[in-house]
Amino acid sequence: MMQATPKTNNGRFFEDYRVGEVIRHAVPRTLKVGERALYHMLYPARHALYSSDVFAQASGLPFSPLDDMIAFHVVFGKTVPDISLNAVANLGYAQGRWLEPVWPGDTLTATSEVIGLKQNSNGKTGVVYVRTTGWNQHGAAVLEYVRWVMVRKRDTNAPAPETVLPDLPAALMPDQLVIPKGLDFTAYDFELAGEPHRWADYAIGEQIDHVDGVTIEEAEHMMATRLWQNTAKVHFDVTARSDGSRLIYGGHVISMARALSFNGLANAQMVVGLNGGAHANPCLAGDTVRAWSEVLDKAETSAPGVGALRLRLVATKGGAPFQLKGDDGKYVSDVLLDLDYWALVPL
Amino acid sequence: MMQATPKTNNGRFFEDYRVGEVIRHAVPRTLKVGERALYHMLYPARHALYSSDVFAQASGLPFSPLDDMIAFHVVFGKTVPDISLNAVANLGYAQGRWLEPVWPGDTLTATSEVIGLKQNSNGKTGVVYVRTTGWNQHGAAVLEYVRWVMVRKRDTNAPAPETVLPDLPAALMPDQLVIPKGLDFTAYDFELAGEPHRWADYAIGEQIDHVDGVTIEEAEHMMATRLWQNTAKVHFDVTARSDGSRLIYGGHVISMARALSFNGLANAQMVVGLNGGAHANPCLAGDTVRAWSEVLDKAETSAPGVGALRLRLVATKGGAPFQLKGDDGKYVSDVLLDLDYWALVPL
Amino acid sequence: MMQATPKTNNGRFFEDYRVGEVIRHAVPRTLKVGERALYHMLYPARHALYSSDVFAQASGLPFSPLDDMIAFHVVFGKTVPDISLNAVANLGYAQGRWLEPVWPGDTLTATSEVIGLKQNSNGKTGVVYVRTTGWNQHGAAVLEYVRWVMVRKRDTNAPAPETVLPDLPAALMPDQLVIPKGLDFTAYDFELAGEPHRWADYAIGEQIDHVDGVTIEEAEHMMATRLWQNTAKVHFDVTARSDGSRLIYGGHVISMARALSFNGLANAQMVVGLNGGAHANPCLAGDTVRAWSEVLDKAETSAPGVGALRLRLVATKGGAPFQLKGDDGKYVSDVLLDLDYWALVPL
Repeated sequence: MMQATPKTNNGRFFEDYRVGEVIRHAVPRTLKVGERALYHMLYPARHALYSSDVFAQASGLPFSPLDDMIAFHVVFGKTVPDISLNAVANLGYAQGRWLEPVWPGDTLTATSEVIGLKQNSNGKTGVVYVRTTGWNQHGAAVLEYVRWVMVRKRDTNAPAPETVLPDLPAALMPDQLVIPKGLDFTAYDFELAGEPHRWADYAIGEQIDHVDGVTIEEAEHMMATRLWQNTAKVHFDVTARSDGSRLIYGGHVISMARALSFNGLANAQMVVGLNGGAHANPCLAGDTVRAWSEVLDKAETSAPGVGALRLRLVATKGGAPFQLKGDDGKYVSDVLLDLDYWALVPL
Repeated sequence: MMQATPKTNNGRFFEDYRVGEVIRHAVPRTLKVGERALYHMLYPARHALYSSDVFAQASGLPFSPLDDMIAFHVVFGKTVPDISLNAVANLGYAQGRWLEPVWPGDTLTATSEVIGLKQNSNGKTGVVYVRTTGWNQHGAAVLEYVRWVMVRKRDTNAPAPETVLPDLPAALMPDQLVIPKGLDFTAYDFELAGEPHRWADYAIGEQIDHVDGVTIEEAEHMMATRLWQNTAKVHFDVTARSDGSRLIYGGHVISMARALSFNGLANAQMVVGLNGGAHANPCLAGDTVRAWSEVLDKAETSAPGVGALRLRLVATKGGAPFQLKGDDGKYVSDVLLDLDYWALVPL
Repeated sequence: MMQATPKTNNGRFFEDYRVGEVIRHAVPRTLKVGERALYHMLYPARHALYSSDVFAQASGLPFSPLDDMIAFHVVFGKTVPDISLNAVANLGYAQGRWLEPVWPGDTLTATSEVIGLKQNSNGKTGVVYVRTTGWNQHGAAVLEYVRWVMVRKRDTNAPAPETVLPDLPAALMPDQLVIPKGLDFTAYDFELAGEPHRWADYAIGEQIDHVDGVTIEEAEHMMATRLWQNTAKVHFDVTARSDGSRLIYGGHVISMARALSFNGLANAQMVVGLNGGAHANPCLAGDTVRAWSEVLDKAETSAPGVGALRLRLVATKGGAPFQLKGDDGKYVSDVLLDLDYWALVPL
């Protein structure tokens, strides 16, 4: 018998990243109507623009695009083997923009540019900042976002790199949002969409309890995460964490909360900006996920009949709605997700 | 912080319904080949007409339609937020007809007309009768059925409406059944379909034990129910019922039993009429669902080579086949479903 | 009430098979992009040729075919009602060849020729050898393989048939492998495929630990097995086995292990030959499946840039990698699968 050769990917460590390098992620993915159907099976997604070709056409689109979160999860999944296989923690998101809808039949690839590095004072880990871009088969960028993760060092004696911290505004400005070409909400059918609330009906500071809850099963979150070709061991392998639990992919919680937010935000049709996000506490199978939202800001757009809402979306696994942080400034233990995004809403 | 505004849907209560009103249900849904594949994953569906485009074409159809139950579940799901969100019980079905096949690519919407109201003597609840119709993107009705549910009153002091009870025959007459355009079973390949039994081989009164069983998991019934955009809390949220169990959507049991009935009724290809149905006992994860059938009636049709069988389909979670009701006239505890439908079978 | 009539299929017994007979299996199946998406949800499949139409086109194919294992599972599933419903054990595979890719939209049927029979000395069971062929709607064979199973006799007094044993070489010769028309790896993008290792980098005798693990849930293996219309009761019904467990379909383990083998064999793109395979020990929900591979042989092919590797793929549910059999020549208890196949790899 020969010796086993090192053919398997063990992921990158902190000292393997250089500011300015561009990593081309592996395994392009063609998404079709099968993935569209699965999204409706995995999440209680009901936003009409993604549910009906006819509704999408009445909104100026050629047909119903794939859910914006499908694009996010697929692009994110591609980055895992290169960015977060040895990550200790997913620290944050910023400056996320959906640049073009993803249509059934599109093939996505992803690249990440390292835009910041900072070794931690313990000398064992460091923070890596990347700007990830998803591309379609036409070479057009469909999504970009900044993510930063804490990554282990392979060799604690490796020298610390020069600290470079990217400039990351707390939120996208409304004029940075990209409105899908042709989008027009002037003939919007509120009854068919499910709720009468239009852009003008939402006030800054308003909070909405989305009421519904979903108890999560292992099979569901694993199938979802696998569908996005996300290979992080902790989601699939009970031996990967010391407590024998499978950690649920944070993006599963994002999609679940976004889908639950239909009840009160049925007309927040398209997600176009991701200002920030924190996976506040781990989510495990058996948790019953609920969601509430807060209107953080409002803006007009150049598209006919289309306004924008900046929304905080909070997912919880219990407790009362509208609780976020304790007196210590830390998230309360029932909060799973605190997401800050821009959505497009009919005027 | 502002006060939370009442943006979420709390559903209608008994006093919110008026005889004659037509409710236009929300969220149109485009169904494609993804949903087709999911049906074969969620249920042990093997009827050849829905499994193979080539078999469907040999039967005079352009290609394989979506399973008749997909149409039913999707239309039913749309009605939940308006009809059964505050329902105490789903009491019955009648006069259900599949009017046109649903093809991959079709977009379904649904409307319900209130055709009956009767307040219960306790003054706390009432029975609402609706005739629901599913429509495709061409404006053609694809499905219609009557359903009646017991709904809570918001205010027990609200006056009782005038009692109106619809006239609901026990079964559709054979000449009410709509045969899909072009359907022709004269070149039917029994070997390929899986069984040699033709219309003439079934006798009124004959009972068939479908033998196979499927033990149900939480993840499966939730994914199925979610796929139909059915939002009833009891199916998804362990906190919704006092015993912490998730009640399985009755339609999941219908589809499971119908699929299991392949073994003995492989040639009962298309479901065209729903005479009635009762969800006799709740189904929970862990139950092993089995099915048996009884031939209730037979009829010829105008289509070449096509006969119709009126069948009772009974789903159970244990016990011996062919047991239905006890001496007290009530369903025995192992019976989950008692469905009365018309199917099309080759002569 | 009439007596129940024997309309259900009870399967064939050993004495029902005749050498030379050809069984035409029931229920043709049209596979589309929905099944493609499901494969990526059920297994951590990442081989680029099956993930991306663009990658497949750069490899000389019109677009991405359905995973080779989808073809295998669907054809296998069709044979279950006729071959293995009363099987005691699935004993082996040999001479398996993928003859043509299966494309979304193809309709598969299957036939099996009985090529061997041998009654066991106990007189209660016998071994049936069949050569199964999968066909597409154009009448072209897409897959063929030999399988042998131990089947119960209905009547132990039935006379033993003449023993006929097929000649089954231990492996396909490289020139027996069918390379998909047009396949060309000369412009292969290793970075996009996920690993730099080419045909020349693999040495006979080399062993690869695929590292990753997946803990299996009941819902997942049942949905997968159902998707292939495999009706064997032991996979679905907790009452079918005396210990109340659901036996996981061996093909689920094959697909899981093949998908896990991406990590180290990302460029072993297409499976074209199945030399043999043993389901060494039962797999049950809760098992964490891992995989390792060994390079058994190498061969050149006539296609541009395309080499072939003969690989042993071993799935385990624990223990250290590279352990296969004990001193007694039997598989160690943690080994689930020992599969011997040919894959196509870029030169």
